[in-house]
Amino acid sequence: MKTLILVLTLAAAFASAASSENKKLIASELIAVSKSEDWRTPSQDNLLYMDLPSGRVIIELAPDYAPRHVTRIKDLARQKYWDGLAIVRVQDNYVVQWADPNAEKADLKRKFKGSDEKLPPELDVSLKELKVVFNKMPDTDTYADEVGFTNGMAAGRDKAKQRTWLLHCYGAVGVGRDTAPDSGDGTELYAVIGHAPRHLDRNVTVVGRILQGVEFLSSLPRGHGSLGFYDNEKNEKPLPIKSIRQGSEVPTNERVNLEVLKTDTPLFKDMLRARRNRKEEWFHFQAGRIDPCNFPILIREKAGFLRL
Amino acid sequence: MKTLILVLTLAAAFASAASSENKKLIASELIAVSKSEDWRTPSQDNLLYMDLPSGRVIIELAPDYAPRHVTRIKDLARQKYWDGLAIVRVQDNYVVQWADPNAEKADLKRKFKGSDEKLPPELDVSLKELKVVFNKMPDTDTYADEVGFTNGMAAGRDKAKQRTWLLHCYGAVGVGRDTAPDSGDGTELYAVIGHAPRHLDRNVTVVGRILQGVEFLSSLPRGHGSLGFYDNEKNEKPLPIKSIRQGSEVPTNERVNLEVLKTDTPLFKDMLRARRNRKEEWFHFQAGRIDPCNFPILIREKAGFLRL
Repeated sequence: MKTLILVLTLAAAFASAASSENKKLIASELIAVSKSEDWRTPSQDNLLYMDLPSGRVIIELAPDYAPRHVTRIKDLARQKYWDGLAIVRVQDNYVVQWADPNAEKADLKRKFKGSDEKLPPELDVSLKELKVVFNKMPDTDTYADEVGFTNGMAAGRDKAKQRTWLLHCYGAVGVGRDTAPDSGDGTELYAVIGHAPRHLDRNVTVVGRILQGVEFLSSLPRGHGSLGFYDNEKNEKPLPIKSIRQGSEVPTNERVNLEVLKTDTPLFKDMLRARRNRKEEWFHFQAGRIDPCNFPILIREKAGFLRL
Repeated sequence: MKTLILVLTLAAAFASAASSENKKLIASELIAVSKSEDWRTPSQDNLLYMDLPSGRVIIELAPDYAPRHVTRIKDLARQKYWDGLAIVRVQDNYVVQWADPNAEKADLKRKFKGSDEKLPPELDVSLKELKVVFNKMPDTDTYADEVGFTNGMAAGRDKAKQRTWLLHCYGAVGVGRDTAPDSGDGTELYAVIGHAPRHLDRNVTVVGRILQGVEFLSSLPRGHGSLGFYDNEKNEKPLPIKSIRQGSEVPTNERVNLEVLKTDTPLFKDMLRARRNRKEEWFHFQAGRIDPCNFPILIREKAGFLRL
């Protein structure tokens, strides 16, 4: 027993020394000293692989925040709903949207199994029901009383009302809808490609965020119809989607094994400090604060993984 | 005299009625009822026309905030410094940068007249020296104690220190530099094409913002060298710039006559209210707040102007 206590004491001392040492490190150094337990491997079950002619976009879904929509989207992917459909809208400093180009014509719109099941919006979640930890960030936010990260996703929190919701940061993925709150059936999705349009928070269901390949969306030619839709009359055509698949449906040797930095660890606290106070030589002024949408997504491909 | 007072009283009553009416309008309706005095015409002297093979980008310079840098940039444009140089860096969710691709090799870098004049950074300005009005926005900001608009540019303010500075919002244009604070000579410029990198505020000189054509920068292919620079070894080439000209040097019939919504008018206050509380039918939740970088640039081409 004494030996165990000694070991634990020593381990705590080492951990404390390491943690105190980490306080001086810049972001790249923190990544370098990070340990495997500082990273999580998203379940392939919660990933969407969107293959475009130009490259692959990988989205992580957030079933903790939008369980019914995530189930619907996985179901649509298994039905290969989006294969051969298209990117229909690219609005600068706003969103890229994909859907059936004939979505406005009810009789032409591609059908799917399960469309008779109603899909009410999932705009926020009760804090009590949230299964993942909410890690509050220390700085004030323009839009939410509190902001932080839950399982790597930027989120807002209203403590009085005991609700939490995902933020429309760059790379967030949401469910397009018409005017009626429940008019989004999950077939039309969008990704944020500009300054965070936070006025959309709690107006639309956010279902996840892009982990990799956002550039294949953000660098697309802008549309010049109303709201950035591609306009036939301006010789603009929707851009074809090869396929969208749930990661677990992708052949093992074609999967990307990504790891995402955990947001509930001591290392992440140090990372937050390092990003609030940039000590890199180039910086001569430290903001001392950070906005959750200005915090980069930290991912890496799992060591030892071979992509065939 | 009595007649004048009556006229003034009536005018005030009408203005008040109009203003109270405007309180109920959404953004597009406010634009529709705006009067010519709600718009300003930027001086062509303060505009830069950046012509790329794909289209034209128009930048408005901010001599109130960076007088020496703006003078240098105008001088460089008159010397046709950037003609035939290139876009060398496109980093996703961050910046597009243009410069001499040989800028790192001192002997090869394109020379210009006046390069012997030192150019210290212009990171902020004394409130007393600021010639334009600072219109404070009502909401809290993560990075600055106060934010607002000065002559249409989003700015921060520190009342205790009596300083103000321009914000790195989407479309802001700044002066690239090396590690030394005074190492930017104005030949290497960047534009923000992602979520506002506000940690750059007061670290780099901001010289203005893009009024039109940002999409010709934001939709460029991303670079895959370090920091998003185009990498020769990855078969990426800098993208040529046809020319950059001061508006006043552009032939009259090739100029674009833009008008920008003023930010110090009663109409703008109504616009701010309309954008903080989106009453359009589509919105079911009003944020009740707004971040200055989430406020759109409102421009129009001057009525009656014919582009030849």
